[in-house]
Amino acid sequence: MQISELSDRSGLTVQTIKFYIREELLPRGTAAGATRAEYGAGHLERLRLIRALREVGDLPVAAIRRILAAMENDGVGLHELFGTTQHAIGPHVAVPDDPHWRAARQDVDALVRELGWQVGQRAPARDLLARAFVALRRLGFPITLTDLRPYVRAAADMAEHEIGRIVRDGPRARSVQAMLVSTVLYEQVLTALHRLAQEDAAARHFDEN
Amino acid sequence: MQISELSDRSGLTVQTIKFYIREELLPRGTAAGATRAEYGAGHLERLRLIRALREVGDLPVAAIRRILAAMENDGVGLHELFGTTQHAIGPHVAVPDDPHWRAARQDVDALVRELGWQVGQRAPARDLLARAFVALRRLGFPITLTDLRPYVRAAADMAEHEIGRIVRDGPRARSVQAMLVSTVLYEQVLTALHRLAQEDAAARHFDEN
Repeated sequence: MQISELSDRSGLTVQTIKFYIREELLPRGTAAGATRAEYGAGHLERLRLIRALREVGDLPVAAIRRILAAMENDGVGLHELFGTTQHAIGPHVAVPDDPHWRAARQDVDALVRELGWQVGQRAPARDLLARAFVALRRLGFPITLTDLRPYVRAAADMAEHEIGRIVRDGPRARSVQAMLVSTVLYEQVLTALHRLAQEDAAARHFDEN
Repeated sequence: MQISELSDRSGLTVQTIKFYIREELLPRGTAAGATRAEYGAGHLERLRLIRALREVGDLPVAAIRRILAAMENDGVGLHELFGTTQHAIGPHVAVPDDPHWRAARQDVDALVRELGWQVGQRAPARDLLARAFVALRRLGFPITLTDLRPYVRAAADMAEHEIGRIVRDGPRARSVQAMLVSTVLYEQVLTALHRLAQEDAAARHFDEN
């Protein structure tokens, strides 16, 4: 197909597609004359993935390039590919040099060890959790392992369900999409359901009539 | 205490405190001379709550004013106060006028009805969930009630735990803080734990050596 059809079918402008080619996120089409290039189903598939990473994951071009490079390198296993994707998604919390933060980060590391979870030392989620711990303590809501238990259990159940759903032997582009969806979109689903459930629980606990 | 001590103890600048007084988020101090005013423990408590709402909830002044008004009105029950707080926190999703969105929003409403949850028709979380449904479908990940079940269960368990922890007869300022913490900070805790659990599940499922 020509670039105009690729644009129609991907929902992206010709200008955006040319930008992705220049940035080497998308391979060039096959030359089909002096000024025309021919694009295939692979291009369309790739554009859909890039669009998902940009719109759903809100990822900058450099992060998308890292994910695509890992995806195309068959030496990179799915576990590493997942780590690369999560690392690209972030969020990358600014780490202040202060004792409260260091204590919280040590608590996070101890928790992960105690749970026996296999998580890279540089996973952005460690800092994310430490930041929440600092904020909770500052407001006078100390956190104990007992407080965390329902959250740990829920997180582990959902993760098992999500990762189990990712097909190991399918196309790697589809696996990356599934990882993105599990991390970003199902988190939104969970957040929304959590708030709805809170409102319902508040109605039941607080309404005295 | 004088305003300089109030500033030291709250960690907010004198300028910020004066701004809150002008915006009527904080009552004036008691006049103690021509140019001096005296502030009490109530002022300090109120400043801590405002600071939490701003820094943790990322709330604008207008939203904080609505929450404080509901908090000070004894005719507003805890359930309504919770709804006001959640509504102020948002996020308020831009609602596009398109059929995919309308279908997703109807699915959300049907889900809430089916679960028998007591949730206001205008709760921002309904739109948040609809937006995630639209994005999932666009990427070719249809959602069924079966897919949602683990999330619904986790959300309900956590909400029950959180709302049950809020003391019904304590100071209302503390209840608002606890609501804020449950909604915003424990959501960050959950998100971080979810990502850590995913990385662990990926290690177990995908590493073949």
